[in-house]
Amino acid sequence: MSILYYTLNNSVFTNFAFYSTAAVVKMMGMSALTTLKRMSKDAFANPEDLSLAKNKTAVITLADPDVERVRRNHLNDIENIVPFVLVGLFYVGTNPDRDTALWHFRVFFISRVLHTLTYQLALPQPSRFITCAIGYLTTLSMASRVLLNVRP
Amino acid sequence: MSILYYTLNNSVFTNFAFYSTAAVVKMMGMSALTTLKRMSKDAFANPEDLSLAKNKTAVITLADPDVERVRRNHLNDIENIVPFVLVGLFYVGTNPDRDTALWHFRVFFISRVLHTLTYQLALPQPSRFITCAIGYLTTLSMASRVLLNVRP
Amino acid sequence: MSILYYTLNNSVFTNFAFYSTAAVVKMMGMSALTTLKRMSKDAFANPEDLSLAKNKTAVITLADPDVERVRRNHLNDIENIVPFVLVGLFYVGTNPDRDTALWHFRVFFISRVLHTLTYQLALPQPSRFITCAIGYLTTLSMASRVLLNVRP
Repeated sequence: MSILYYTLNNSVFTNFAFYSTAAVVKMMGMSALTTLKRMSKDAFANPEDLSLAKNKTAVITLADPDVERVRRNHLNDIENIVPFVLVGLFYVGTNPDRDTALWHFRVFFISRVLHTLTYQLALPQPSRFITCAIGYLTTLSMASRVLLNVRP
Repeated sequence: MSILYYTLNNSVFTNFAFYSTAAVVKMMGMSALTTLKRMSKDAFANPEDLSLAKNKTAVITLADPDVERVRRNHLNDIENIVPFVLVGLFYVGTNPDRDTALWHFRVFFISRVLHTLTYQLALPQPSRFITCAIGYLTTLSMASRVLLNVRP
Repeated sequence: MSILYYTLNNSVFTNFAFYSTAAVVKMMGMSALTTLKRMSKDAFANPEDLSLAKNKTAVITLADPDVERVRRNHLNDIENIVPFVLVGLFYVGTNPDRDTALWHFRVFFISRVLHTLTYQLALPQPSRFITCAIGYLTTLSMASRVLLNVRP
């Protein structure tokens, strides 16, 4: 059994790399969506950005509800997707069962896509709460394996 | 001497994995604390969340002082714990002395636990400033070793 | 051909470690800049911080324009530099061409330094937009290579 876990020969690592990168790209999509919302609503945060406004009487705002919804979604991604990738890097090093690991990665990624949908469509609660909690518990499950396997 | 630094056979890596995961889990705890504060104070940020409020006349708020304190604490964690883990990954690759590395990891983790206590208990300054600075300087110490060892 | 990509023997990894650490240190500089701005303007976010104020009649504020500009810059760093490092870790594992990889890392790092300058000097748009977009596209370019190479 090889002790090289961080190579493309290890399918746990390649599966993790795929779902982590996909989740980070989804997170980065919130930056693009913020820019689109700011442009479409002339809702800019900096005085120098007003030169981009369609309506030349626009003023800066930090409280446009549509822009702020995307920004809260983005921050929630940072609070959840970044921990998933960081903890997952160590989780891969604990040589988990291939299928168990794959389901962790899949469930996390799908939970974050559904979370974004519930957030941006403002679906009735507790839909957003549940999708967020599923991803959160997935990361905690990986973290518990790391903490139990690498005790100093 | 092995050049495999990212395996459970390298105690620098296992120590790093332990303290990094513990720090990330502590950071994730702020999400749970935010939710608890929002529920206990009916202080929700989204209109659709008001269905969860105990007081059915609650309105959305972005300025509850207790919730915002937890959120500032959470953001400070992101600003400090994420850099620690990212820089630490490269630091482990520079094959540092085992004990020197372990003390970096321990001091960082303890500084962040104390930082959270000073923040949530609103202890007199400069207690919070000092705990934050200790973790910050620990990460910079690791970063300086990386930058000196991997100069392109 | 070695399959060990995460060692100091692999110049793609050392180049990535250098530019990633430099970018994270730049990001951490925003914390220091926030503290300096808060101190110089007596613009504190927590009641217990007012003991640090020069003017003893200062009150807490979450809306000082200079402090908020640094904080928006810091958050933009988190939204862009953290994805770069996370995606880059997997990108290094795909064994990219040495020079292609190096230019990705260089362009990203320089784009973030220029982004900070355009933000803090409030240079006319679209200068900030362009610097941000260049770094963003660089990370997406690395992500596309990862997703194509590690398909589950």
